[in-house]
Amino acid sequence: MTTTGRQLVSTLTADGKLVLELQEKDFPAPAGNQVLVKMEAAPINPSDLILMTTGVDLDNAEYSPGKVVANVAPPMVAAQAGRHGKPQTVGNEGAGTVIAAGAGEMAQALVGQRVACVPGNAYSEYALADAMMCIPLGEHSCEQGASSFVNPMTALGFVETAKREGNEAIIHAAAASNLGQMLNRICQEDGLGLVNIVRKDSQAELLKGQGASHVVNSSDKDFEQQLVQAIAETQAFLGFDPIGGGTTTDSCLRSMERVAAAKLTEYSRYGSDQPKKMYIYGRLDLSPTILTPSYGFGWTVTGWLLMPFLASCDMPTLIGMRQRVVSGLTTTFASSYKAKVGLEEMLTRDAMMDYAQMATGEKYLVTPNA
Amino acid sequence: MTTTGRQLVSTLTADGKLVLELQEKDFPAPAGNQVLVKMEAAPINPSDLILMTTGVDLDNAEYSPGKVVANVAPPMVAAQAGRHGKPQTVGNEGAGTVIAAGAGEMAQALVGQRVACVPGNAYSEYALADAMMCIPLGEHSCEQGASSFVNPMTALGFVETAKREGNEAIIHAAAASNLGQMLNRICQEDGLGLVNIVRKDSQAELLKGQGASHVVNSSDKDFEQQLVQAIAETQAFLGFDPIGGGTTTDSCLRSMERVAAAKLTEYSRYGSDQPKKMYIYGRLDLSPTILTPSYGFGWTVTGWLLMPFLASCDMPTLIGMRQRVVSGLTTTFASSYKAKVGLEEMLTRDAMMDYAQMATGEKYLVTPNA
Repeated sequence: MTTTGRQLVSTLTADGKLVLELQEKDFPAPAGNQVLVKMEAAPINPSDLILMTTGVDLDNAEYSPGKVVANVAPPMVAAQAGRHGKPQTVGNEGAGTVIAAGAGEMAQALVGQRVACVPGNAYSEYALADAMMCIPLGEHSCEQGASSFVNPMTALGFVETAKREGNEAIIHAAAASNLGQMLNRICQEDGLGLVNIVRKDSQAELLKGQGASHVVNSSDKDFEQQLVQAIAETQAFLGFDPIGGGTTTDSCLRSMERVAAAKLTEYSRYGSDQPKKMYIYGRLDLSPTILTPSYGFGWTVTGWLLMPFLASCDMPTLIGMRQRVVSGLTTTFASSYKAKVGLEEMLTRDAMMDYAQMATGEKYLVTPNA
Repeated sequence: MTTTGRQLVSTLTADGKLVLELQEKDFPAPAGNQVLVKMEAAPINPSDLILMTTGVDLDNAEYSPGKVVANVAPPMVAAQAGRHGKPQTVGNEGAGTVIAAGAGEMAQALVGQRVACVPGNAYSEYALADAMMCIPLGEHSCEQGASSFVNPMTALGFVETAKREGNEAIIHAAAASNLGQMLNRICQEDGLGLVNIVRKDSQAELLKGQGASHVVNSSDKDFEQQLVQAIAETQAFLGFDPIGGGTTTDSCLRSMERVAAAKLTEYSRYGSDQPKKMYIYGRLDLSPTILTPSYGFGWTVTGWLLMPFLASCDMPTLIGMRQRVVSGLTTTFASSYKAKVGLEEMLTRDAMMDYAQMATGEKYLVTPNA
């Protein structure tokens, strides 16, 4: 028995047209340990927007009900050559109700339950998911469980990465985001130092109100002095930057070096031997990353992605992280949303122009069956 | 008994004046396993120029015999705050004749011999060196032995680094340098793939004449296509860039990703999972490093320095590298020089304006006692 419903599909053509469209699709009956989830809530994360708005001329797009056609900037078209003409489903994660299950024991146990899942097509009325990857939500609502994978596991992943590399403090940029607020709570729980970089006073207040000890504002004239002081106090020589473009990572490395150089008793032309590392885990700013020659040679800038990180963890670590998320779903790992939109509404000009900005703390939630 | 001689000293003041000056100095009698070397030959390497010409206004400097006073660009002054007012000796490495030795057995065994050494004040009539760090040159001349540490150990270090990280091929930029030519010979001896990036046809011809299989010219219009093809043929996903500033590292990472993406059967919005790594080991270009968002998140850019690398090696590896250098001093590890200059001559306007350019294959040799 198949179930029919609409799902969002994104197609980029070789000549630079992006088509976002709700398509009717037949979902087959789940087999083995698969479950069929009626999707109730799915967040729009920056990683989802890569397939929807990155480099897309939303201003001059054609909007019709359930369909958007837009031009994409040529460099982005070229950079995504592997995607040309291949329809992609959208929506990494979400939550919903299991309405059918394969014969497998794990799948059967979930029938009728609300679950969080990571189907890759969460902007859809229905999604097939692996029962092993589902988190039963118990008494929690689908809205409460919708963001229980990407942000929580990423925030825990930062902490795990820092500890693994022997650091007792980290820097986080764009720190007032949902993810940043989670990280702030986790670091307080774990006694890990955290230097939060924000760009507005209101964001600084928000984080301080949530117990953050070190918040620096990149819009302040003395930003780098603030940063140097916070690094000196926390000894944070490792950071995570979701902005990517511009000078955020550069400022962090330079400030780390100033703190390290202040401890040198003898001058070294090559800079200090304190290792300094920045992970770029997003590209909120698509302009180039700028690295100035001002922190010697003891530095590393590298990418960070959730899936390769998870693949690097052993099973007990993974289970521990997951367990922690489940038990803190409405506390440590709670997310908030600016707006809820249905499948058609998420493709309107107003909605797209708004969530495409990825403004801090203004995340959208898609409710496919509302 | 002390020995008196002139040595070059570099002093940067907090208000941005650089003073390079030959100063009379008393060298004490060597003790223990120290030897006193009468310096005959010392190369001017890019790492030496950090203390002599980087950011220095050579055009408007005051040149007098044995002394140069020049203004330094404010950002470079600020970046070297740890050095303000602290006189630095110059010249990492060189070769000369041991004229006195401490009572230690190793030191005594070197009396009267020509040795290569790494004293840190090689632009000097005399230098104290640790006997354990000296390489006896046997029948080789001091000119032949002058560059037996920095370039040979760096080139071998690249190969060791690549092998340690599981790579069978590497990319090298500014590949026609003395160091690049050495690396070309080592890679051929070891059967390691090497993609040489040069910027002139004459440099390409030079390397091809020395047996290089893959040479790409960054001045060619189809530079990146050439680079992509060379990477595809060698599988070089790790590279070494002495230029630092500008887009060389970016071109390498983007080309690596194109080769990796061509193998993907399914599109990934995050790029391929092929790790791509570039080491920046110099700053021939002091402009910022530019990293465009065009190769996903599976990349790393990091510094490479000889001393931390050597510190990471175990003793058998170090001894093996050193032994290889000694036995290949006039073949694999041979260096050539554009000009020889005495201590006073190295501080003339003509000489400084020339070697400050660090033009490929135009290295200077200082002959302090000629």
